Amino acid sequence: MRRIKLVVAYDGTGYNGWQIQSTGATIQGELEKAISKVLNHKVSVVGAGRTDSGVHALAQVAHFDTTSSMDVQVMKKAFNANLPKGIVVREVCEVNEAFHARFSATSRTYRYFITKVNLPFFTRYAWFVPYELDVSLMKEVAKVFVGVHDFRCYGKPMVPGGSTVREVKRCYVKSRSGRLEVVVEANAFLRKMVRNMVGTVVRVASGKASLEDVKRSLEEFVPVNGVKPAPPQGLFLWKVEYRRDI
Amino acid sequence: MRRIKLVVAYDGTGYNGWQIQSTGATIQGELEKAISKVLNHKVSVVGAGRTDSGVHALAQVAHFDTTSSMDVQVMKKAFNANLPKGIVVREVCEVNEAFHARFSATSRTYRYFITKVNLPFFTRYAWFVPYELDVSLMKEVAKVFVGVHDFRCYGKPMVPGGSTVREVKRCYVKSRSGRLEVVVEANAFLRKMVRNMVGTVVRVASGKASLEDVKRSLEEFVPVNGVKPAPPQGLFLWKVEYRRDI
Repeated sequence: MRRIKLVVAYDGTGYNGWQIQSTGATIQGELEKAISKVLNHKVSVVGAGRTDSGVHALAQVAHFDTTSSMDVQVMKKAFNANLPKGIVVREVCEVNEAFHARFSATSRTYRYFITKVNLPFFTRYAWFVPYELDVSLMKEVAKVFVGVHDFRCYGKPMVPGGSTVREVKRCYVKSRSGRLEVVVEANAFLRKMVRNMVGTVVRVASGKASLEDVKRSLEEFVPVNGVKPAPPQGLFLWKVEYRRDI
Repeated sequence: MRRIKLVVAYDGTGYNGWQIQSTGATIQGELEKAISKVLNHKVSVVGAGRTDSGVHALAQVAHFDTTSSMDVQVMKKAFNANLPKGIVVREVCEVNEAFHARFSATSRTYRYFITKVNLPFFTRYAWFVPYELDVSLMKEVAKVFVGVHDFRCYGKPMVPGGSTVREVKRCYVKSRSGRLEVVVEANAFLRKMVRNMVGTVVRVASGKASLEDVKRSLEEFVPVNGVKPAPPQGLFLWKVEYRRDI
């Protein structure tokens, strides 16, 4: 049995998220269908992050097991020839069987794009926020999230009853010519965590909540009033990092 | 009667180009429908450039005449509320009746995007060229196009039998991290001219034609062998400039 690692980019528009659901096309489902067809046996694909409906990935990481002896470069071409246009396999390589796309990952980085300019090319890939945002305040809120915190106000664990403590390693805001970017790296994320963080950053930056409210949400678990998760189309799973020893 | 100028951005994907056709949705058609509905009388919209099927615009310019006294900012909101998501009116202003979106324009600038990296986010907005391109050679070809030339090998005039002489004011290639951009400014363009120019640039840069072939196409009207127009999705109408006195 060989374990194969994939790096996959996808445009999440129109998909019902990463994970196979009872209804609607999913990224995992499309990958399993294409790979099973190419390798001529049923495969199960495990991803590093279960992105929500409409969320994109620049470099999602996944693995599957196969009995096939097909060369990995041949696999890559064949997978892409059988996948819909919005899903692209960027890398295929054989890995040690100890490698697990989800459990061996040490960090995930997401990027969230906000646009002040309403252009049709950004509609699928950014959140259009027409009102004024205080960028220096956004940067302050981002800093508050950094560190080990109980993020129970920002999302639910994937496993019911699981821990809501996560380590945010980096969280910062980049601003350039009409475009804002929120970058977050953590060991792992709760469901909708990045979108709730971005929704909070924008809420404070538009003057509707304070920095103190954000601190209280992490220390006393009082949710910031009126925060909604930022819409999915601005979010990209950007990078997944792994232990060096496997 | 008031003459109104519009600046419009659109994602050309799925549209049958700018100009109203007997079949398929067009940008001009969608604009006329939305504006006529808002102003409650039939309007005709004249555009600066008739972009082909699948070509985008960052800032197409158009005009129409109306008897309505509606404020231009109110118009802008109402037009956008009635347009499909892929078409955005960016500016609305009242102009002198001597202003004509097509005839008063002194230059049009197009940008063409080429990507070396196959990512799903670029599929709608760039030409994916997987083979090696000699960027310094691309820059040389671009220079050859600058000046007043008979571009009969590069496209047909909009009016049958019309002149094929055009003045290319600027033509250059920008390269950064996996992305190439061909920028062309001219007084006016022939049909498919930019796409044929880009197809030629890429043909030479991949070693299948020479700089001499390109010069010959402009001087002796021998078409460069094997050139196909670059695909529409990489092309953006970027800017239209006007005489200052109207």
